[in-house]
Amino acid sequence: MKFSVTAKDSSSAARCGVLSTAHGDIPTPIFMPVGTRASVKSVEPDELKALDAKIILANTYHLYLKPGNDILFKAGGVHRFMNWDGPLLTDSGGYQVYSLTDLRKISEEGVMFKSHLDGSKLHFTPENVVDTQRIIGSDIMMPLDECPPWPAEREYVQKSGELTLRWAERARKHFLSTRPHYGHEQFQFGITQGGTFDDLRAHSSRELIGMDFDGYAVGGMAVGEPAEEMYRMLELSHTILPESKPRYLMGVGTPSNILNAIERGVDMFDCVIPTREGRNGRVYTRKGTLNLRSAKYADDFRPIDEGFDNHVCRNYSRAYIRHLLNVGEILGLKLCTMQNLSFYLWLTRTAREHIAAGDFTDWKESFLMEFNRNGNK
Amino acid sequence: MKFSVTAKDSSSAARCGVLSTAHGDIPTPIFMPVGTRASVKSVEPDELKALDAKIILANTYHLYLKPGNDILFKAGGVHRFMNWDGPLLTDSGGYQVYSLTDLRKISEEGVMFKSHLDGSKLHFTPENVVDTQRIIGSDIMMPLDECPPWPAEREYVQKSGELTLRWAERARKHFLSTRPHYGHEQFQFGITQGGTFDDLRAHSSRELIGMDFDGYAVGGMAVGEPAEEMYRMLELSHTILPESKPRYLMGVGTPSNILNAIERGVDMFDCVIPTREGRNGRVYTRKGTLNLRSAKYADDFRPIDEGFDNHVCRNYSRAYIRHLLNVGEILGLKLCTMQNLSFYLWLTRTAREHIAAGDFTDWKESFLMEFNRNGNK
Ligand SMILES: [Zn+2]
Ligand SMILES: [Zn+2]
Repeated sequence: MKFSVTAKDSSSAARCGVLSTAHGDIPTPIFMPVGTRASVKSVEPDELKALDAKIILANTYHLYLKPGNDILFKAGGVHRFMNWDGPLLTDSGGYQVYSLTDLRKISEEGVMFKSHLDGSKLHFTPENVVDTQRIIGSDIMMPLDECPPWPAEREYVQKSGELTLRWAERARKHFLSTRPHYGHEQFQFGITQGGTFDDLRAHSSRELIGMDFDGYAVGGMAVGEPAEEMYRMLELSHTILPESKPRYLMGVGTPSNILNAIERGVDMFDCVIPTREGRNGRVYTRKGTLNLRSAKYADDFRPIDEGFDNHVCRNYSRAYIRHLLNVGEILGLKLCTMQNLSFYLWLTRTAREHIAAGDFTDWKESFLMEFNRNGNK
Repeated sequence: MKFSVTAKDSSSAARCGVLSTAHGDIPTPIFMPVGTRASVKSVEPDELKALDAKIILANTYHLYLKPGNDILFKAGGVHRFMNWDGPLLTDSGGYQVYSLTDLRKISEEGVMFKSHLDGSKLHFTPENVVDTQRIIGSDIMMPLDECPPWPAEREYVQKSGELTLRWAERARKHFLSTRPHYGHEQFQFGITQGGTFDDLRAHSSRELIGMDFDGYAVGGMAVGEPAEEMYRMLELSHTILPESKPRYLMGVGTPSNILNAIERGVDMFDCVIPTREGRNGRVYTRKGTLNLRSAKYADDFRPIDEGFDNHVCRNYSRAYIRHLLNVGEILGLKLCTMQNLSFYLWLTRTAREHIAAGDFTDWKESFLMEFNRNGNK
């Protein structure tokens, strides 16, 4: 995997880069919209492009259940299945196994669990999760890991971290001994664990570096720990992870989380906040969030964010979107979702511009002051 | 209202025309997508344009309830509220009062009823329905009418028809004595009633012609009567309604209904079938309809209608849309809705081409044979 750092901030670990995949180049830092089941909630692939999405994420667990590997293989992979020709990253499904399923049993071999859809008994191993992601055809795949809750006992986090490392080694070996199905090269990242224990996190990172993954994710974060603990882990990771490879903070987060993580050297993000909040009528603006379900927007004919240049703000008023939400028209959910994705993509794009311009930290401070000043409305 | 007939079929009453409004010209025969609450289910105005929609319909009853006249007036009318700059037609709300509300009481003055949303007591009169449509700013408005069920006693249909005529006269008078709010000219159609009684339908039509409306709708059809009865009423209407004004068959219908009505001189159609069926996963093709929820499409990677040149067929497979419906992704509903609107718009566009080419009836027969051959799958 080719990753070039193109600019570095002088007063922080923030950096710009370009990540090259068979489906296109990705400028970093980047936010990746989440398309769990091969669809980014209500938004079409051509609309994602227009929103400036450079890479999207899909979920191995969900796709494995439906439509399943057989159909995905016949389709020629998820790019062709959903008609998205840009880069695609898939998580391993490990997180979903732990959060969605019952009766799971973790062994050295892998994890047995019952499908949350029909209760059928399934088995994920480091190897078959690679196989599924070969069938999905994602440009970047993640290995099966175990993600401890927070807080967790040091002993549990250590044992779990060792298992994740043995799984990572098997996943890496299986990845290197198998080939892509569809002619385009695929890459594989490692996922560091270790909770918020410095020595465990450092050990996990160093062991994974020895396996020479194409990039590294800081895993097991945003599971309830204070943001400061997460930032401390990022600072530690920055001192250990190789500068020449991309760094991905999985499942994070708020605009503040993202900018603080960029400042600590993170390149890639995914999070369901913009899509989930959009479906609830909460929209992001540069001056904080608005709850468009509120009656106070009934006759507010301004765009969601005045002067914000995107499709939603150019074409629709708060009053109209509030009306759509109020009468249950699904176009309302779509417009809120698009606004939020557009905002998150603007956030990482603008971060890139300020890193390149050399004033990232100043911009971050002033943006967050403005964003947080009025809070949620 | 300027309406020019531009071509006439030699072997039937089918005709092509152009209807000019302040928001653009409408080629006829035309299908009008239904945007009841100022939104065509999940489809954005720019997407409607791309689907070749020339005029859309909204509903006075629903808009009067939500967002209400106050907000619509502040917005500057529905065109600006929903960001649709093409022609807009609004029905009178009469049909919704009869089909959705309880405890309605019809008097000479108008109709009292309870809102189906919150039970509040409301009153529609021929005059205030015009006022609301002035506030909506529709290019074409319909007057308040009463629509008898089918079958109904002759005496009831006659009495009801006389009331509708008195209401029409008041509506026309009020329309002519009021002005548009937003600077663009508005037009008003009359609605004929009389059930399937030839003499009552003829009387209703002749009385309305005397009031010199800008066009005429054949009302009270598609309420359960056999299609042959409806066609007979259209044939009768054709001999009475002026050739120089557009004719609108409200709430109809299947592709077969629409082509048979075009053959009998109808110019305009609206129907919820394409949007409603789309939301249920039933899609229209030139070879009949498909139920995309069916498992048999799980690995069918062909477009919905092979060789049909629209956004949905160019970009997505049956298998992908079936997957979206199967996992409950709302993009599936949107794609099915778009396919169906696109199909209905193709149907009236192609009818126009064949009327102009002089082979409408031949084309209609061969299209319907192909469309019905395989039935619903
Ligand atoms: Zn590819
Ligand atoms: Zn206008």
